[in-house]
Amino acid sequence: MTAFSFSVDGRDGRARAGTMRTPHGAVPTPAFAPVGTQATVKAVTPAQLEALGASLVLANTYHLHLRPGAEVVERVGGLHRFMGWPGPILTDSGGYQVFSLADHRRIDLDGVTFRSHLDGSSQRFTPERVIEIQERLGADIIMALDECPVPHDRAANERAMRRTHQWAERCLAAKKRDDQALFGIAQGGVFEDLRLESVQFIAGLGFPGIAIGGLSVGESKAEMLAVLESIEPALPPERPRYLMGVGSLEDFVQAVMRGIDLMDCVFPTRLARNHAALTPLGRLHLRTAAYAEDPRPIDADCTCYTCRTFSRAYLRHLTVAGEMLAATLLTIHNLTALIALAGRLRQAILERRAEPFAASFLASYHKHRLPEPLP
Amino acid sequence: MTAFSFSVDGRDGRARAGTMRTPHGAVPTPAFAPVGTQATVKAVTPAQLEALGASLVLANTYHLHLRPGAEVVERVGGLHRFMGWPGPILTDSGGYQVFSLADHRRIDLDGVTFRSHLDGSSQRFTPERVIEIQERLGADIIMALDECPVPHDRAANERAMRRTHQWAERCLAAKKRDDQALFGIAQGGVFEDLRLESVQFIAGLGFPGIAIGGLSVGESKAEMLAVLESIEPALPPERPRYLMGVGSLEDFVQAVMRGIDLMDCVFPTRLARNHAALTPLGRLHLRTAAYAEDPRPIDADCTCYTCRTFSRAYLRHLTVAGEMLAATLLTIHNLTALIALAGRLRQAILERRAEPFAASFLASYHKHRLPEPLP
Repeated sequence: MTAFSFSVDGRDGRARAGTMRTPHGAVPTPAFAPVGTQATVKAVTPAQLEALGASLVLANTYHLHLRPGAEVVERVGGLHRFMGWPGPILTDSGGYQVFSLADHRRIDLDGVTFRSHLDGSSQRFTPERVIEIQERLGADIIMALDECPVPHDRAANERAMRRTHQWAERCLAAKKRDDQALFGIAQGGVFEDLRLESVQFIAGLGFPGIAIGGLSVGESKAEMLAVLESIEPALPPERPRYLMGVGSLEDFVQAVMRGIDLMDCVFPTRLARNHAALTPLGRLHLRTAAYAEDPRPIDADCTCYTCRTFSRAYLRHLTVAGEMLAATLLTIHNLTALIALAGRLRQAILERRAEPFAASFLASYHKHRLPEPLP
Repeated sequence: MTAFSFSVDGRDGRARAGTMRTPHGAVPTPAFAPVGTQATVKAVTPAQLEALGASLVLANTYHLHLRPGAEVVERVGGLHRFMGWPGPILTDSGGYQVFSLADHRRIDLDGVTFRSHLDGSSQRFTPERVIEIQERLGADIIMALDECPVPHDRAANERAMRRTHQWAERCLAAKKRDDQALFGIAQGGVFEDLRLESVQFIAGLGFPGIAIGGLSVGESKAEMLAVLESIEPALPPERPRYLMGVGSLEDFVQAVMRGIDLMDCVFPTRLARNHAALTPLGRLHLRTAAYAEDPRPIDADCTCYTCRTFSRAYLRHLTVAGEMLAATLLTIHNLTALIALAGRLRQAILERRAEPFAASFLASYHKHRLPEPLP
């Protein structure tokens, strides 16, 4: 059974427009996937996500394993039904969260033991265990367990890469459900030879999608882009490429122009809860007094519900008044900013004008991006 | 110009089905109006309010006067545009909030001086001032300034009633805009003779709508219902009757059966933020462990987005995980519970079966209303 497929619908340079097909629907690429850590994209309903054009939503295995538990999600009908999102879902492996626990985890060849951030209980993830958890959750796309070290320590990255490769093989062997696509994750830090080795190894195992892990974790933007450029020729052209944890407007465009098809990040939703709005001309900090009587929408060119309905003055009022609706409206806007950009970029790729589109977007973005909020 | 009108579409006993017409649309009655204290019904968007069937929304003059200020709202286009709600809006006079400030306000014949709960600044409301503020805000229905004392002190209620009557006359004289309907407020505590005097006085001034203030502020349910019964014959039949600050399912039915057309209350939305759901069979406290694996919706008979989409297990997960979406989904449900009940009651009145409908609803409600959450 091939529950998952990917087709490339058009190319322009290294940029690709494609379609991922899953048991719960299609994902046109390039795509930005909102993150629903605890089985909810914070502050918005699934209906609002659908209305703003989201096609794929992420959820975090680490968080759902600890609360409410994969068995609970399974018993009430699986993750799609549980979170009320009928479209495609991707779960990560939990590896990134566990390795972020620093002093509260101990890694060995077989897996990783860690303390729950909720109750301090001792927990253990192995490749087999995270596949079992993800099979119970029931997402369309699931991820192999990887080790994500700091980006500049070569020895640590070499070790982590070898372990990630062994775990990738074990994840493939452990997988039972045939209605889920398991993506492998390449590591290697900022070291181009390790990155190439990792991409080739992971691609060689036959995963239907290849993720690039361990970027946007402390290295410079230039280093991140250099890694993407160096590995692109080694990535199988017929499979989707997923850059994990990257999601500013600028990074999205730059990564797509280097052959990436899919990205996710908490950045736009977290920024929204901190009262900032993404626009092609930079960020608006809505709490600023300058917006107190500003009748304009966040972005006059944006077609989201927030920009169609509300002024900066109202959004500023909500943030100052501490109203929850501020988070909801800014989340709707910020996700739309990324998802609409993905759609425009896709169109530009199909029409073979991705290069001028990206150049114009980035030039305008850099010209306007100011340390202070826009007037 | 008659920007406001009211028609009685049907009667059954003392219960009435009517239609209020305002410059921003019609309000079928009996109606429950959600409260948007700070120009937002907490945790939901105007689009969600519209989808769940809200027709009239309240906003609070006290809060909006202090922040962002009526002048700001006026300059960015008025309250409808500001809060993105194109339908009918009612603003209260701010009186109730000011009198709730207890030690932080001083009342005199001319008005009331109080300290802002936000910054301690000295503020003053007079009848003329609250009309001016409400004219700047621009709601469809505005309210006269009243004094709301504790319910059982006869001398205080007599004093407050006289002052309320004088202020009602001054509000009428101060009113300039002809596209807003000014409602008067009758006071009188639990004292039937005062209540009758107040209703007759306020009705005699020619207000297009009569509000009953000073109930649900400490008196018993039986006292509240006795007041409603005693004043009903004195209320002009051709004008809408608005019972302020009442909004449980049970109270709503009992008040409508005693001739009330409109109610508002923070109760359903506040309860939602405290993780409780209103149902005809009692309240569900969603945080309870009993719901951890319950695949059922809150109320199988409810047609709201929340009940159509999510299980009790998911709602319980959201509350335990501290996710904002819990407040949104429970607010949608609780407002739907009241607004759908209002619609069913309206239909029953039009079909002259209000008495059995109410009796059956209340019998079932009392039978099932348990101190502990339902299984």
